[in-house]
Amino acid sequence: MFETLEVGKRITADDYGSLQKRLRDRLLQAQLDLAGRDYPVIIVVAGLDGAGKGSLVQQLNEWMDPRWIETNTFWEHSDEEESRPYFWRFWRSLPARGQIGIFLGSWYTRPAQAAVNDEMAPEEFALYCKQIESFERLLTDDGALVIKLWLHISQESQRARLQDDSPHRKSSPRSSDHPYEMRGVYQRTLEVSEQLILATDSSHSPWQLLEAEDRYYRDITAAELILDAMLYRASREPAGSRAHIPATETITGRQPTVLDSVDLSLSIDRDDYDSQLEHYQAQLRDLGWQAYQQKRSVVAVFEGWDAAGKGSAIRRVTRAIDPRLFRLVQFAAPTDEERAHHYLWRFWRQLQRDGRCTFYDRSWYGRVLVERVEEFATPAEWQRAYSEINRFEHQLVDHGVIVLKFWIHISKNEQEKRFNSRKKEPHKQHKLTEDDWRNREKWHEYELAVDQMVSHTSTRHAPWTLVAGNHKPYARIQILQTFCKTISEALQV
Amino acid sequence: MFETLEVGKRITADDYGSLQKRLRDRLLQAQLDLAGRDYPVIIVVAGLDGAGKGSLVQQLNEWMDPRWIETNTFWEHSDEEESRPYFWRFWRSLPARGQIGIFLGSWYTRPAQAAVNDEMAPEEFALYCKQIESFERLLTDDGALVIKLWLHISQESQRARLQDDSPHRKSSPRSSDHPYEMRGVYQRTLEVSEQLILATDSSHSPWQLLEAEDRYYRDITAAELILDAMLYRASREPAGSRAHIPATETITGRQPTVLDSVDLSLSIDRDDYDSQLEHYQAQLRDLGWQAYQQKRSVVAVFEGWDAAGKGSAIRRVTRAIDPRLFRLVQFAAPTDEERAHHYLWRFWRQLQRDGRCTFYDRSWYGRVLVERVEEFATPAEWQRAYSEINRFEHQLVDHGVIVLKFWIHISKNEQEKRFNSRKKEPHKQHKLTEDDWRNREKWHEYELAVDQMVSHTSTRHAPWTLVAGNHKPYARIQILQTFCKTISEALQV
Repeated sequence: MFETLEVGKRITADDYGSLQKRLRDRLLQAQLDLAGRDYPVIIVVAGLDGAGKGSLVQQLNEWMDPRWIETNTFWEHSDEEESRPYFWRFWRSLPARGQIGIFLGSWYTRPAQAAVNDEMAPEEFALYCKQIESFERLLTDDGALVIKLWLHISQESQRARLQDDSPHRKSSPRSSDHPYEMRGVYQRTLEVSEQLILATDSSHSPWQLLEAEDRYYRDITAAELILDAMLYRASREPAGSRAHIPATETITGRQPTVLDSVDLSLSIDRDDYDSQLEHYQAQLRDLGWQAYQQKRSVVAVFEGWDAAGKGSAIRRVTRAIDPRLFRLVQFAAPTDEERAHHYLWRFWRQLQRDGRCTFYDRSWYGRVLVERVEEFATPAEWQRAYSEINRFEHQLVDHGVIVLKFWIHISKNEQEKRFNSRKKEPHKQHKLTEDDWRNREKWHEYELAVDQMVSHTSTRHAPWTLVAGNHKPYARIQILQTFCKTISEALQV
Repeated sequence: MFETLEVGKRITADDYGSLQKRLRDRLLQAQLDLAGRDYPVIIVVAGLDGAGKGSLVQQLNEWMDPRWIETNTFWEHSDEEESRPYFWRFWRSLPARGQIGIFLGSWYTRPAQAAVNDEMAPEEFALYCKQIESFERLLTDDGALVIKLWLHISQESQRARLQDDSPHRKSSPRSSDHPYEMRGVYQRTLEVSEQLILATDSSHSPWQLLEAEDRYYRDITAAELILDAMLYRASREPAGSRAHIPATETITGRQPTVLDSVDLSLSIDRDDYDSQLEHYQAQLRDLGWQAYQQKRSVVAVFEGWDAAGKGSAIRRVTRAIDPRLFRLVQFAAPTDEERAHHYLWRFWRQLQRDGRCTFYDRSWYGRVLVERVEEFATPAEWQRAYSEINRFEHQLVDHGVIVLKFWIHISKNEQEKRFNSRKKEPHKQHKLTEDDWRNREKWHEYELAVDQMVSHTSTRHAPWTLVAGNHKPYARIQILQTFCKTISEALQV
């Protein structure tokens, strides 16, 4: 999830100057328009400590007309609040229709903090998340526009920022020893944050995850997201579920995606490859039987660019496993029968029983990749799919299934080379279609889709592995190695 | 909740004959129409053991064309099912678009049964319910029409029916010693059922609670509800949340409501009244202070017919409590500021702190009473309100608040008498307005609204008390007595 937020998205100071001028007018205009409308805008600013939540809110107040914005913080627990149900404090701070309420510290703060400090049982935490989801649904059912921003910075940046002892920082309650703070427990905080975000990333009030390393990028993008959500909401009455991911790139310029963090120069020499292939395949053979004995299933998903080497990589895996123990299923366009059911149905039905492996050559992620880019699915459909997929995989994991997900990445140049070589070799020509060239034109759209897919669905229990695929042997070893490591850890052998 | 389902709704054998003939054609027509549509219909038949779920399903299969219906039972756990995630069995049984799938035994069965047998921790059960809600939302988001019927019978009927040892019954797996059965634990089953229904009574797939005592009424009404939902869904594309409660009364004729179970002949004589009034007021005075010391709040809601004697009953309560400890809030039409917020906001903000009482003279129930009947709220809004209100009250109860809810009932004749006497007495004339006479014309609509309100919101933790109000002194004593009993039980004094 958070790997997409440490890729170096940024804006130069010059660009910032000119962008902010334009932004400001449009924000004021949107605010003016909102004043005449019959719904409130509720902005939740959350995220890691030191990511600049306070500065962002200050900036928003500066850019917009503060007369129609109320900023709410919940640093101090007043006894007025403590002696009423927890949500009372939020209810009484809700903005009126036509107004904007910014929540810096919100209904997310207490459960996040309690979970990080291990003061809340996992079931209680899970119920809390559900309660939040219901609360937000109640607001959006009533017409409210709920915008939730999550600000992320890397562990190193956090450390550096929190050690900054400038006078301004010292006097801010934010960096005091306040119980809302979550410093010094970076990894645990990420764990809890992931759970919190997954459980509340609904189509009626989706999370927007933001890389907050560069303050120019952070502020401009946050404001653009707010503006975009407001314009979108204003354009459709009556309110429905919001299914729209704004293309902030049109404003901020092209930004790196999580795929840029994959080192495509990685390779492995022939001898190493042979010995490692043998080693991991032997290990995987054993693990396959051990999983069978422990009645643990394996579900592995293979996705990647055309010509990324999916098929040959899968073969290196399946060769290692007894054919009685696995099933490889391929997915192209759905059949009539499949089309007559929910899109997840065709994947559910292929699921093998306990102790068996199911390998999916293309998978349910088609919903948020090809169906999104080719507009086979509406924005509402593919955006909703993130949480549907997370729930589906959660059920698998809950049942004891070991879930692996691979995206095999190659560079655009490498793809061209492979396409051309396919053209030349007669026995490979059938693998190259018109579609492949067409998909290639949408390379960047796919990059964005992959970035968001990883952002929304790479979870602790079912993480994505981004495979460096330019050198095929390297990719195969990376995949086999990931298989062995994940399965042996899960089986505790 | 279930008190509305033991009021004697029934249809005569003659009526049944003529009704079923008409029904049958319309059901077939709806089915034919469905075949060409791109969504499935999923019917869940649940309810108490012995309520006739199996017979109903058989009847539905007889009335409709069985070629487009699949009935699914989940009596036996196959090992195919056990070795995959729990929901796999339901996924693979889901009907295709254009078809009807009836689930007799469904995703509700296992958690209900586990909870009744105390094999599942409360938190786990709560999470399960949430998982069900998400599953159903996923189906309805995809366009599916989900119809959920809950069949209720009284404890006496259940006992009688389950003791029936006719050969047909003996060989039915339903009445075997099967683990899905929930016999012999009637009260515990009701408790669990209430939780299950409350947690999954959503606007996208609402529960329809059915009195199943009389099989004619049960079958006709169930079929009408299904038909109505199908016609309604067919009439609006694309699918949205279903917000529509069918008026089956237009078919089955006027049926008794829960208000008919209130014995309005009850009265109390003058001497008794005086001594009991004194007794309970003294007790309540003490309890007020004890609640203060224990930091427990009391929230009491007063609703009732015009001229039911709400005001004078409230005064008998407030006189008993130290004015420093309570606040009485009255609600008429909302102010501008209130209108600019969610309808629950104005009730939240009046909430007094721990140890204090808040008395609401009219309340959030206006949403499902006057706002429903007068069409100030859309069907979507007031139907959604049931679960919103339940969640709100649940938060109160969770925080330790003691919740009391009174509906003061009088007969239509008694109301007329009181209106006329108001007309005559100068100091009471101001209490009688044009609205009062107008509301009176909608008496039966209000009766239906009260019946459904009690059905959806009378919960174990915040039950409705239906007060027999024809004799004012009796009503006052009933209210005071309920106050004393509820508070002393909650404080354990």
